[in-house]
Amino acid sequence: MAQWQKEWDGFEAGRWSNSVNVRDFIQRNYMLYEGDEEFLSPSTEATKKLWDQVMELSRQEQEAGGVLDMDTKIVSTITSHGPGYLNKDLEQIVGFQTDKPFKRSLQPFGGIRMAQSACHENGYEVDPEVVKIFTTYRKTHNQGVFDAYTPEMRLARKSAIITGLPDAYGRGRIIGDYRRVALYGTDWLIEDKKQQLETSLVRMTSKNIRLREELAEQIKALGELKQLGEIYGFDISKPAKNAKEAIQWLYFGYLAAVKEQNGAAMSLGRTSTFLDIYIERDLKNGFITEQQAQEYIDHFIMKLRLIKFARTPEYNALFSGDPTWVTESIGGVGIDGRALVTKTSFRYLHTLDNLGPAPEPNLTVLWSTKLPRKFKEYCAKMSIKSSSIQYENDDLMRATHGDDYAIACCVSSMRVGKEMQFFGARANLAKCLLYAINGGIDEKLKVQVGPRYRPVTGEYLEYDDVMQKFDDMMEWLAGLYVNTLNIIHYMHDKYSYEKLQMALHDRDVKRYFATGIAGLSVVADSLSAIKYAKVKAIRDEDGIVVDYEVEGDFPKYGNNDDRVDAIAVNLVRTFMDKIRKHHTYRDSFPTMSILTITSNVVYGKKTGNTPDGRKIGEPLAPGANPMHRRDTHGAVASLASVAKLPFRHAQDGISNTFSIVPGALGKDDEIFMGELDLDRLTDQ
Amino acid sequence: MAQWQKEWDGFEAGRWSNSVNVRDFIQRNYMLYEGDEEFLSPSTEATKKLWDQVMELSRQEQEAGGVLDMDTKIVSTITSHGPGYLNKDLEQIVGFQTDKPFKRSLQPFGGIRMAQSACHENGYEVDPEVVKIFTTYRKTHNQGVFDAYTPEMRLARKSAIITGLPDAYGRGRIIGDYRRVALYGTDWLIEDKKQQLETSLVRMTSKNIRLREELAEQIKALGELKQLGEIYGFDISKPAKNAKEAIQWLYFGYLAAVKEQNGAAMSLGRTSTFLDIYIERDLKNGFITEQQAQEYIDHFIMKLRLIKFARTPEYNALFSGDPTWVTESIGGVGIDGRALVTKTSFRYLHTLDNLGPAPEPNLTVLWSTKLPRKFKEYCAKMSIKSSSIQYENDDLMRATHGDDYAIACCVSSMRVGKEMQFFGARANLAKCLLYAINGGIDEKLKVQVGPRYRPVTGEYLEYDDVMQKFDDMMEWLAGLYVNTLNIIHYMHDKYSYEKLQMALHDRDVKRYFATGIAGLSVVADSLSAIKYAKVKAIRDEDGIVVDYEVEGDFPKYGNNDDRVDAIAVNLVRTFMDKIRKHHTYRDSFPTMSILTITSNVVYGKKTGNTPDGRKIGEPLAPGANPMHRRDTHGAVASLASVAKLPFRHAQDGISNTFSIVPGALGKDDEIFMGELDLDRLTDQ
Repeated sequence: MAQWQKEWDGFEAGRWSNSVNVRDFIQRNYMLYEGDEEFLSPSTEATKKLWDQVMELSRQEQEAGGVLDMDTKIVSTITSHGPGYLNKDLEQIVGFQTDKPFKRSLQPFGGIRMAQSACHENGYEVDPEVVKIFTTYRKTHNQGVFDAYTPEMRLARKSAIITGLPDAYGRGRIIGDYRRVALYGTDWLIEDKKQQLETSLVRMTSKNIRLREELAEQIKALGELKQLGEIYGFDISKPAKNAKEAIQWLYFGYLAAVKEQNGAAMSLGRTSTFLDIYIERDLKNGFITEQQAQEYIDHFIMKLRLIKFARTPEYNALFSGDPTWVTESIGGVGIDGRALVTKTSFRYLHTLDNLGPAPEPNLTVLWSTKLPRKFKEYCAKMSIKSSSIQYENDDLMRATHGDDYAIACCVSSMRVGKEMQFFGARANLAKCLLYAINGGIDEKLKVQVGPRYRPVTGEYLEYDDVMQKFDDMMEWLAGLYVNTLNIIHYMHDKYSYEKLQMALHDRDVKRYFATGIAGLSVVADSLSAIKYAKVKAIRDEDGIVVDYEVEGDFPKYGNNDDRVDAIAVNLVRTFMDKIRKHHTYRDSFPTMSILTITSNVVYGKKTGNTPDGRKIGEPLAPGANPMHRRDTHGAVASLASVAKLPFRHAQDGISNTFSIVPGALGKDDEIFMGELDLDRLTDQ
Repeated sequence: MAQWQKEWDGFEAGRWSNSVNVRDFIQRNYMLYEGDEEFLSPSTEATKKLWDQVMELSRQEQEAGGVLDMDTKIVSTITSHGPGYLNKDLEQIVGFQTDKPFKRSLQPFGGIRMAQSACHENGYEVDPEVVKIFTTYRKTHNQGVFDAYTPEMRLARKSAIITGLPDAYGRGRIIGDYRRVALYGTDWLIEDKKQQLETSLVRMTSKNIRLREELAEQIKALGELKQLGEIYGFDISKPAKNAKEAIQWLYFGYLAAVKEQNGAAMSLGRTSTFLDIYIERDLKNGFITEQQAQEYIDHFIMKLRLIKFARTPEYNALFSGDPTWVTESIGGVGIDGRALVTKTSFRYLHTLDNLGPAPEPNLTVLWSTKLPRKFKEYCAKMSIKSSSIQYENDDLMRATHGDDYAIACCVSSMRVGKEMQFFGARANLAKCLLYAINGGIDEKLKVQVGPRYRPVTGEYLEYDDVMQKFDDMMEWLAGLYVNTLNIIHYMHDKYSYEKLQMALHDRDVKRYFATGIAGLSVVADSLSAIKYAKVKAIRDEDGIVVDYEVEGDFPKYGNNDDRVDAIAVNLVRTFMDKIRKHHTYRDSFPTMSILTITSNVVYGKKTGNTPDGRKIGEPLAPGANPMHRRDTHGAVASLASVAKLPFRHAQDGISNTFSIVPGALGKDDEIFMGELDLDRLTDQ
């Protein structure tokens, strides 16, 4: 390859035109936009018609109980379905996961039981032949994991001291660099992968054999991706030659990924500034109008809003809804200091007007103090209007990841096409504290789950005694947790490898081994109560501590009070250090997140009374949030407490869900951030 | 478990009655038989009727072109078929691979293309749905291997410098300890495996995860084995309570293995003395007569003769027939000096009378000077009569393997249930020598296959020059060969794991990494010709050496002439040492064999003219044999040359195919060994 493609005429050449390098293409070709939103176009008649159709189908879906149609026979693969349309004549960007919109696909590679349950709970039944294939002939990820689990792991999972493990569904959190499809076309990418295979290590250790097989799978996936284009009448083997094709090619890449994987978070990446380059070229050449440009983007976003998976009510309960985490990262600043804001950054946010507010795609602004003022203002305005924008700290992440990273799910940052994550859910530290007090006996199941360490025996809890026991119990939990995740990721690679997504990565990727914690503020406050007030242990007839009486007041996390904030900071560092002691699958780099944005409700249900006075069943605070109503010293003090948490020990992200009335921060037309996740506030 | 089972009443207790230990059971309970064959019974009417039926079906099979019926839709698993019979009323031992005799099963896990080809070449077509399942949903061993192969490996395979690789079919050479099924029943074995899983390492490295998953698979396989018994109306969850059940339980174990795996060599183990214990108990208790005992054995052996696989004509060409290598090891001597010969050792050999001679099962006598004389005489007699007995050197192997090993395939020895082998086919050293002369260019394909080393340039070959180049080329070949095998065994474990066979092994098995060489005598003679005569290189128009003119005479391997025998000895040691330099899959122990008993014909076809005067296409000598008609100094000199080969560098076995007229060794009634493989003659 490595020769100039005619579809690139008008672009400035560079390293990107000799080898796969999307960042270089962007840096050489994008046009910073520092103006306001005045140029934006309203939705076209076609867009309105299509969106009305979507709204009508949504209504029908709601009426039908949440699911309108499900595949029960055709197993979803990249090429499994014929084309599907809303209205072929009106759609500028095409492609559905199945042969029609709102029909959920059948994806049993992660686990046939999950697929059966998802169908059954919605009134459908998986074809018996498919069930036979995925039990007799084709093992699933889920089956592999449960084959290898220890009884202790099963128990820890049941008691929910480790929760939300991706052992029955796709792990997600991998972002294919879908832009590569548009920029290079599949033929180039296949050639590139073939060369990677050719130049791979020839000493055949198991690791090298695995890599070679994966590259072969990736090449097959790219071939299937090309076929997917053909199914819809497009030849995507060559680079996209205009904006419409660029969006379409990119979307085919993403569509292939969601046809192959039912991942917990199937994020899109960082595409707006990339696509802007094509739109600018077409506008400059007079090929399209602003109205058309916006229509393309509207239709693209519309497609992303219609990404759906077959999931169980249990899954939806955990995530308080049916999230797909089609996260798109917008804005941010380049390492040369130029903001990565373009007109298409505005166009993406403008879909919240043209199509109305929506949680998906998860539009995430990479916030920097250096963003153009008018873009900041527009973000603020759209946040107030839609409550649909997420913000993350670009100044912080840029230092680690450079200027071509994106967010997977809600807070997991990774360089696009160069890094990926093994998603690892969460350990419930609040429950771990209760295990420390009860010597490993689960306070709800009333069975021994953790090790039979000595329980707390006195009437009142002693801080040093509890801390030592808690430290030992965290040591146990960290080991069990990492080993459980090792099994999950080994089996996911074995039985449900993300071949299309990894085909849109470099060969030698950096892998993060993500862990997470839940219950941070509950534990901090509980330990504070034990230290600064008096906490009396209430035992049941079997001597198990089941409740606590707090006598006196104590400092609470969320008030910028170092006495308790230091406990929280210490907790994060301590648990992460314990995680670091263990072997992680595939030489991956361990990280930790504090980000239970929604699942904190379910975790709370599974956690008994805690020494901070929280009652059994009450939700834990989300992510790194202070417990509800305990941050009594105002917004700044609350944020300051969270800001103390050390990013270096929670590199997968710290989330703070924070709602305020606009007026609280100043006048309406000043910079403002509405309902937001304040992520990675600082690096201590 | 670990409690006395009522089915064992009458046996002497020991370690075997507390934990799985078949050897201990045998040692404590078997009754050495030193008498002659007078006690044996002829075939019963039932046996004759059944065998006539088999003969008739065989005739029909021949008429039909070699295959009578094939499964094209039902994928073979342990429980895939209903019961099948020849004549249910007459059969003492039951069970076929499919629902009727002579119907070959469909086994696509090793490779769907091989399965399709086997059907197609015999006039059948695999059901398209099955093809879809094994291409779209279920990857096969064959697909995995070819995904990971390098272009160099594919080329070496095509040129046949590496041959017979098990990359499209089952590797075989694994012997389940089928006796365990009879002695313990499946429930005990499942409990035992569960305990092994429970006590497996909990630090979840990929190795440990793999082991845990395999144990889980083994447990499932034992469950399916129990179901297989139920399909035929037997409850094999408990130990066998009499001889008939013991044979039946044992056979179900073997049947499950061949239903699951289409391995190149599906050997039986060492079962006769084990079963004799049950027969002796029944005879002693008056439950059965000698006639019944023989009938059980006859019907058992009849079943083993009817083991059939769906194979391609190409495969059959390589092996000069359709071998299944149902090898049964008979006799041998215990480490306490008592021979392991029982009446049932005789009964097994007697089937060659009762059913007539046959190549399968491959009855292999573990020969020792200490075998009872009357048994030796009987073996000699049956050899003369049937030409159907293989002999191997027990005195040699016992030193390495103890007294409960068996032979897999033709010469591969392993402790039953404690050791297994990764089968590795052969490297063609004759071709390697030609590559050394031509600088890596294949003399038949006329393309560069090996590395571009300097070729021989002179008109006459110089010994030192050729030796140095040959050494370099062997260095390359050994590395390529081991790496190719590493891929094969990684993929076989991944896509076609022998779960039932490994369920009948201990948890922590020793794994041999078997390699092999072909063309030993051709190379020895070629090098001798270069050294002691004058060899002129004849080049084609491209300068490739394609033929040789030998001027003068030279010592030839097979005449007890150290000048050339030393070259052969050195070659074995040198190549094995080069093999040892490389990483082998799963910490396996590298070994080498010299044993091309039949495939030497095909290898000869693929090897050009050689400097010893052998012409293109002529067969190589089998195994370690001297080249045909070159061993002109008599049988003893020929055997003496072979006997010099160092067993420690060819631990997987050295085979010598040796035919003589009985009279040559003495009088008819003296000890004699008819057509035999003289294996492992000595350990230097």
